[in-house]
Amino acid sequence: MKTLADAFEHTLQDVYYAENAIAKALPKVIDAVSNADLKTALKDHLGETKGQIKTLQAVFKSIGKKASGEKCDAIEGLIKETEGVIEDAKGAVAKHAAIIGCCQAVEHYEISRYGTLREWAKALGKDEAHELLSGILDQEKAANHKLTNIAVTEINRPAR
Amino acid sequence: MKTLADAFEHTLQDVYYAENAIAKALPKVIDAVSNADLKTALKDHLGETKGQIKTLQAVFKSIGKKASGEKCDAIEGLIKETEGVIEDAKGAVAKHAAIIGCCQAVEHYEISRYGTLREWAKALGKDEAHELLSGILDQEKAANHKLTNIAVTEINRPAR
Repeated sequence: MKTLADAFEHTLQDVYYAENAIAKALPKVIDAVSNADLKTALKDHLGETKGQIKTLQAVFKSIGKKASGEKCDAIEGLIKETEGVIEDAKGAVAKHAAIIGCCQAVEHYEISRYGTLREWAKALGKDEAHELLSGILDQEKAANHKLTNIAVTEINRPAR
Repeated sequence: MKTLADAFEHTLQDVYYAENAIAKALPKVIDAVSNADLKTALKDHLGETKGQIKTLQAVFKSIGKKASGEKCDAIEGLIKETEGVIEDAKGAVAKHAAIIGCCQAVEHYEISRYGTLREWAKALGKDEAHELLSGILDQEKAANHKLTNIAVTEINRPAR
């Protein structure tokens, strides 16, 4: 890794790996959830994640590269933490609150990565990549906001 | 883990572990950085992190518990990723851009955790904890914003 273009490609591979890992991990999270609104939000996000994988393929194409993933320790750690919480919180009144907390940590990881990638695309004059990545960033922020809303309005207080 | 109070204590232990791990990891990041503004921002944040560790001890005290950490896979992964980037980017023109990207991923992890903890403290009626955690959350958001500003104004374009 030498230039910003190298860092951009490397981080794109990192989020491509992360989105594929999330798409694989989310069904287990959805299965663990019984709250209707949270289940719907997570199902919607699984659909969005699959769309984001396709959008990332378009970003790779726009820079003349083939889509590929590179193992990302951060998302591995975040998913491992989520799986641990699902196991620990089985049957607990605070199960949904704990699961939302983990999902929001994953959302924030993505928000940080797409925020970085979008600015790098801008600095590199990669307009198509900038537009596509801005679209994904907006989706991640909206997904995170929806989770906050569900937590605050119907999950946290009954979990006491 | 059964109730929201349990989840609160568990996540407090998680961020206590994370802040201590960050305080340990940051000096190596600071050593790897030569840009003056970035070095100052990271040094300032190391000082803030040490203060946050003390504030977290006060949060533990406010709920009648002794401060203790619990291994957090997410921060381990984020720090491992940062150390890998520092190694890969040695001498590269994009070194500072890549390092800022990693630091912002860590900031966003903290933002997500303190956002969750603060809302849980509110739902639990733990006013003192809510206030202390809100203060840390504001610091993390400001630190993240400062890093974005440094990246956009003086790091990204020269890194091309």
